[in-house]
Amino acid sequence: MSAHFTATTSREGFRLGRLTTAHGVIETPAFMPVGTQGTVKTMTPEELAGMGCQILVSNTYHLNIRPGIDVVRQLGGLHRFMNWQGPILTDSGGYQVFSLAKLRSIQEHGISFQSHVDGAPCFLGPESDMEIQAALGSDIWMALDECPPWPCEEPRVREAVERSIRWAGECKAAKAALREKNGLGADRLLFGIIQGGGYESLRRECAQRLVETGFDGYAIGGVSVGEPEPEMLRTVEMCAPHMPAGEIRYTMGLGTPRQIVEMVARGVDLFDCVLPTRVARNGVAYTRHGYVHVCAGRYKADPGPIDEECGCYACKSFSRGYIRHLLNTEEILGLRLMSWHNLFFYLDLMRKIREAIKEERFAAFHRKFLENYREPNDKNPS
Amino acid sequence: MSAHFTATTSREGFRLGRLTTAHGVIETPAFMPVGTQGTVKTMTPEELAGMGCQILVSNTYHLNIRPGIDVVRQLGGLHRFMNWQGPILTDSGGYQVFSLAKLRSIQEHGISFQSHVDGAPCFLGPESDMEIQAALGSDIWMALDECPPWPCEEPRVREAVERSIRWAGECKAAKAALREKNGLGADRLLFGIIQGGGYESLRRECAQRLVETGFDGYAIGGVSVGEPEPEMLRTVEMCAPHMPAGEIRYTMGLGTPRQIVEMVARGVDLFDCVLPTRVARNGVAYTRHGYVHVCAGRYKADPGPIDEECGCYACKSFSRGYIRHLLNTEEILGLRLMSWHNLFFYLDLMRKIREAIKEERFAAFHRKFLENYREPNDKNPS
Repeated sequence: MSAHFTATTSREGFRLGRLTTAHGVIETPAFMPVGTQGTVKTMTPEELAGMGCQILVSNTYHLNIRPGIDVVRQLGGLHRFMNWQGPILTDSGGYQVFSLAKLRSIQEHGISFQSHVDGAPCFLGPESDMEIQAALGSDIWMALDECPPWPCEEPRVREAVERSIRWAGECKAAKAALREKNGLGADRLLFGIIQGGGYESLRRECAQRLVETGFDGYAIGGVSVGEPEPEMLRTVEMCAPHMPAGEIRYTMGLGTPRQIVEMVARGVDLFDCVLPTRVARNGVAYTRHGYVHVCAGRYKADPGPIDEECGCYACKSFSRGYIRHLLNTEEILGLRLMSWHNLFFYLDLMRKIREAIKEERFAAFHRKFLENYREPNDKNPS
Repeated sequence: MSAHFTATTSREGFRLGRLTTAHGVIETPAFMPVGTQGTVKTMTPEELAGMGCQILVSNTYHLNIRPGIDVVRQLGGLHRFMNWQGPILTDSGGYQVFSLAKLRSIQEHGISFQSHVDGAPCFLGPESDMEIQAALGSDIWMALDECPPWPCEEPRVREAVERSIRWAGECKAAKAALREKNGLGADRLLFGIIQGGGYESLRRECAQRLVETGFDGYAIGGVSVGEPEPEMLRTVEMCAPHMPAGEIRYTMGLGTPRQIVEMVARGVDLFDCVLPTRVARNGVAYTRHGYVHVCAGRYKADPGPIDEECGCYACKSFSRGYIRHLLNTEEILGLRLMSWHNLFFYLDLMRKIREAIKEERFAAFHRKFLENYREPNDKNPS
């Protein structure tokens, strides 16, 4: 068992954990709202704390481009910049380099690319990535990896796995060097990322070799990159047995409320996803019954809240009819209320999941959740 | 002196007042944030109340088009719709019909026009206007008027003045009829609007004839419609002597912080303006020294607040460098913080004005304010 993470397994077989970081303890399973550009879209830090947010995710790639790492450093690091005093996890930026940047060239020790904003030439390698995350001052650093697209042929995925393993090792060495040279990052955690696409042997090999190197936590990357949901669940099932029980397990970029419940059932502890704020901006609200399209005409004069069972600020204060009006007239308060509700829903779901595990009734919770929750593409169960 | 408004004049000669409405008392001079579409842009009602907002303005024209008056009525009226329990003043919509709507046709008893949103045919007359404001349930109703453009020939302005006076009388009669027939609006106030462009004789005549009819308050309309600032000040000076000392005086759509200070010096009690939230969205923050363009490159790594002398949430919590980053990346939190600051600045300015009048030092406050406050078009005083 590690110094920073303690996990207990319930009699039912589900995980409850406590992750200790430089800025506080996180109870897992936990969801991390995403603040890509140094802000969780539409929200203040106080609003996030008030709804039980324990940790945020931000992004090395985006902050490196705007406002630039030097600016964040001069302004006292990411915590002070955002005025968020809780834990922060920063993604390495590898995913964004492969999904957003232009004219990439992958080299032995990093990637040359052009900024998607202004085309400026950039370079990201294991060493610079650790330096950037040190400058940001985040609590959890992610190793630089290569995320292959989906679908992808095995030889190409194997190449990405080899590179990701090598870079992860170089990140670990670079972090140790930063500590030795500058005393930086001693109390910061470094997570390795398991790649391997849908290939079980590659996933297993990647997990095993990362565990041999030794990281403070392990993430499953390259999921939710376009593959169907069953494929994604299968990939997580491939990885989980090879991830140490005593370290935290994180699926990157996941997922819908249902996917999160499914992942918890498969032993995952940590999640991050842009969905709650992204779909909010399209007028979609989560409830335990599934999606609600708040812009729908039938809510025009509806005096009820978005979700009768919800205790969030938006649901306690405003009607569906009012929020629909705000969305239709493109008023920012509409985006705020929708984002507030959806983030509250996710964080509240995690609270309920932790309680259910603690009280040895997660199996029933899981079954009940799947029964109630319907997404638009689901077949009608009746 | 009227039942709903008490005004005292300081020994220095400036007005302090208390306006009593169905939803509470307003200390004047007061500024009313504008919630055109049933929301003060980016803000929650609690945030507004927390910064000392006493009363909001909303708009008959816009709410009539979206979501429609029936919807607001079904959702319990404007206070419940917006979840704002303080006083609300609603504009009659006349100004918007003349500035936004298409294909207008002015008739004896109202205006036919097409919605600027979807071209739907609409009609607004004194009677329907009072019915709409009754349905909204606002505390202060504005009479339907015709606002001529600027500049405008005298015969055309005279026509608008005649029509505005006649419609104001019809509004008063319609409000009385609503009360008699449906018991509606007994505790609601109706303000008349003085038109007359830049023509002193027309302004005087309009004011005198409205006062003869008798309203619960008087507004100066047709200012801030494109005329230069000195012309606008002159127009207010033309009207003020003809407005009853015992009733509240309101300049519609005004103004910059400096214009407000100038208007208070000229005996005006009530103001509304979209500037604080509109310029916020363009990265402009008000301070007592004038504008700050927060997007300017020199603030890139500036750790100071927008305004060192400000006590608002944005200034207490975030640096110029961070807010500049949010504006550059088009993050909604940036618009929220800028709007928050500017609204706080306006409401705080009004508090300082009231204090200065109470303490018999408004003349000095006025002089000092003009000395310190510089706008980009001002000539450099040095």
